[in-house]
Amino acid sequence: MTEWYAPWAWLGTGDAVERDVVIAVDGDRIVSVTTDVQPAPSRARRLGGLVMPGLANAHSHCFHRALRGRTNSGGGTFWTWRDAMYVVAARLDPDTFHALARATYAEMALAGITAVGEFHYVHHAPGGDAYSNPNAMSDALVAAATDAGIRMTLLDTCYLAGGFDTPLDQMQLRFSDGDADRWAERVSAMTSTTEIRIGTAIHSVRAVSSDQMRVVSAYAEEHGSPLHAHLSEQRSENLACIQAFGCTPAQLLADAGALGERTTAVHATHCTTDDISLLHGHGTSICMCPTTERDLGDGIGPARAAADAGVSLSLGSDGHSVIDLFEEARALELDERLRVETRGHWAPASLLRAATSGGLTSIGWADAGLLRAGKLADFICVDIDTPRLAGADPEHLLEALVFGAIAADVRVVVVGGRAIVSEGRHHSIGDVPGELGRAIAGLIA
Amino acid sequence: MTEWYAPWAWLGTGDAVERDVVIAVDGDRIVSVTTDVQPAPSRARRLGGLVMPGLANAHSHCFHRALRGRTNSGGGTFWTWRDAMYVVAARLDPDTFHALARATYAEMALAGITAVGEFHYVHHAPGGDAYSNPNAMSDALVAAATDAGIRMTLLDTCYLAGGFDTPLDQMQLRFSDGDADRWAERVSAMTSTTEIRIGTAIHSVRAVSSDQMRVVSAYAEEHGSPLHAHLSEQRSENLACIQAFGCTPAQLLADAGALGERTTAVHATHCTTDDISLLHGHGTSICMCPTTERDLGDGIGPARAAADAGVSLSLGSDGHSVIDLFEEARALELDERLRVETRGHWAPASLLRAATSGGLTSIGWADAGLLRAGKLADFICVDIDTPRLAGADPEHLLEALVFGAIAADVRVVVVGGRAIVSEGRHHSIGDVPGELGRAIAGLIA
Repeated sequence: MTEWYAPWAWLGTGDAVERDVVIAVDGDRIVSVTTDVQPAPSRARRLGGLVMPGLANAHSHCFHRALRGRTNSGGGTFWTWRDAMYVVAARLDPDTFHALARATYAEMALAGITAVGEFHYVHHAPGGDAYSNPNAMSDALVAAATDAGIRMTLLDTCYLAGGFDTPLDQMQLRFSDGDADRWAERVSAMTSTTEIRIGTAIHSVRAVSSDQMRVVSAYAEEHGSPLHAHLSEQRSENLACIQAFGCTPAQLLADAGALGERTTAVHATHCTTDDISLLHGHGTSICMCPTTERDLGDGIGPARAAADAGVSLSLGSDGHSVIDLFEEARALELDERLRVETRGHWAPASLLRAATSGGLTSIGWADAGLLRAGKLADFICVDIDTPRLAGADPEHLLEALVFGAIAADVRVVVVGGRAIVSEGRHHSIGDVPGELGRAIAGLIA
Repeated sequence: MTEWYAPWAWLGTGDAVERDVVIAVDGDRIVSVTTDVQPAPSRARRLGGLVMPGLANAHSHCFHRALRGRTNSGGGTFWTWRDAMYVVAARLDPDTFHALARATYAEMALAGITAVGEFHYVHHAPGGDAYSNPNAMSDALVAAATDAGIRMTLLDTCYLAGGFDTPLDQMQLRFSDGDADRWAERVSAMTSTTEIRIGTAIHSVRAVSSDQMRVVSAYAEEHGSPLHAHLSEQRSENLACIQAFGCTPAQLLADAGALGERTTAVHATHCTTDDISLLHGHGTSICMCPTTERDLGDGIGPARAAADAGVSLSLGSDGHSVIDLFEEARALELDERLRVETRGHWAPASLLRAATSGGLTSIGWADAGLLRAGKLADFICVDIDTPRLAGADPEHLLEALVFGAIAADVRVVVVGGRAIVSEGRHHSIGDVPGELGRAIAGLIA
């Protein structure tokens, strides 16, 4: 049994920050959390700063990390950006995918992310053939997350069409299993471990027809798997869907049995009020990706309206123009302020819950996200003695954290009771920038 | 003469990053900038990373730093936030003001800010009496900037009324000189030095009547001073102005002779197309404060429309919810993307110019902002070997910097040829978080 002591901790629920907290861990689980322990037990490992549950990155396309800082010159839209993204996707093979994912997950680890939902659709070889090991690309991701020491839910993604009644284009062929039955057959060969869980995804209503969505939904239901889907990120998806089927993408998902309590709609930027009611009625949550929605010009989504309707929220860094869940959390609030020109739409703790338990529940790790006996021992320590957070008093520490902290303030990261980051450095991946640089250089001609 | 060598440098103009750059400095000026110098001269001081002109924070209310992370719970608007801000303003005296300004300017120095425009209106004692030294509060700011080693333009602010045809309230009394002639008399006692320049400001059309604005404008004209004014940050200012005078705040400024080439309109969030033409016609620039405009729910201003009209832009961290000029620069672009749902509105170098030469010109330091012979030797070095910028190649380094760098990546800061920050640590203020914490604790009951 190991004990950790922190002068401050947010336990993952409530609005308060606790003092003098001792977290006892046995194996990969928390066995007790005790507050107001004075003096700190001499046997405890001391964490200097504020301890909180590990951050959950509920929506990631790890290979998009190669595009950071490369697509911002000139004009364009989501769709022209997508062309640039496809060029990188076309160059991936299991080895380069592993190298980039490993470095990107290490960047996430340094940012305090202890679990990631990887929305994975580059599972076939260029042109669409299966690799000799049909899950070679998935295995590369599993190895990468294992190397980086973070938990992953592999949201293995069904992607069959290029649009409503549109075949896949040349670049998209490698995203497809041909049909949902073959997708299910491939996915069923993957097995969960203590750190890796297998989930499912429908890329979008553009990429999977209703009858094929039913197959995915049934598979997810049968296996009790998380099911994610991009939803209404762009207005044109709504328009095309209404033109093709006379209903919104959310309605199309609902009609195909894809909405449920284990379903997460990603973005939901252009969902209507009725769509939100529909999601809420099915117990479906929404994953917002605010820095990506800024980057891609998606627009400001109806996060507050969804929360008001009772929809749970999670957060993802998605395209990884930034990997900083604190920035995602405050962006949710700040972008709503820009939209409606008033302040204070979420309590700071609510924003942090979206970045922790909300995300973990969305990707199938409801046994993490809280500092509580019986939960997985996944927690981080954030330095609060920085120019950014200096001046925060205990009453405002949580607020200061949400609105002032940055990923680089994370000093210690513990996953399953084991420290993977200390003093802001990754234990097993010594040169994260170097690995990122080499992995990306290999993909960018 | 001192020489500095950097493997990479952006010289402050153009879109390119230069290689192997040697900057020769004599006294506080650059005497030469040479590119492609190989090998690096052994006598040169080596800067590891990307060197660029120092960042300019063109709009600061330093004491607002005490509010960071304290006003985000509950709802409210700009106006309820202002009440909280007034409580802090009421507690300031020359000593506490100095302590907070010194620590805040040190935070700016660490963030690579080499010059600040301090929009200063807390110049009288609570209740409105003059201090025995009428410029005691201004002197506190001058001492603070000098301690922190950064340049300052003291934008001494005329603030006479609580609104259109509304007297000052109890909290606002200390902002007022009584009338603009007395404001001018007080300001004229201040003198510029090599690091401190005296500028002028009209708080807003709400706070200074047209006839009094004329006095300030004439003073600024006579002294060749920068003249700043808050403009149309809130819709209600526009509405009240139109109701009172039948014209927009920008027109009111113009009619009072307050617009000109040395004038900067701060925010301009709710300026009309005609207002922008008016500003452009007078050669007036706009200072956007995107993180504050997010924080206060001001809305997304017409920065792109203004730039299209030919208006120069600068950036400020204003309320200091964040002190990170890279974040301000990218926020300008990203918030425009949210507004219009397309990408790529500014070239990365244009965003950086707003954060450097644009701001320096706005606050009266046109002799800084470029790495060029004859200019002030104010420059910074940004670490590019970080998880954030890893993977950027030379062609995309500037873009990666704008969209990926953070204030904490600044390693070296040189002002007037003298390093004030090395290895990310301030030379003369050893414990910036500690000073911030103590200064703020003294003001927050």
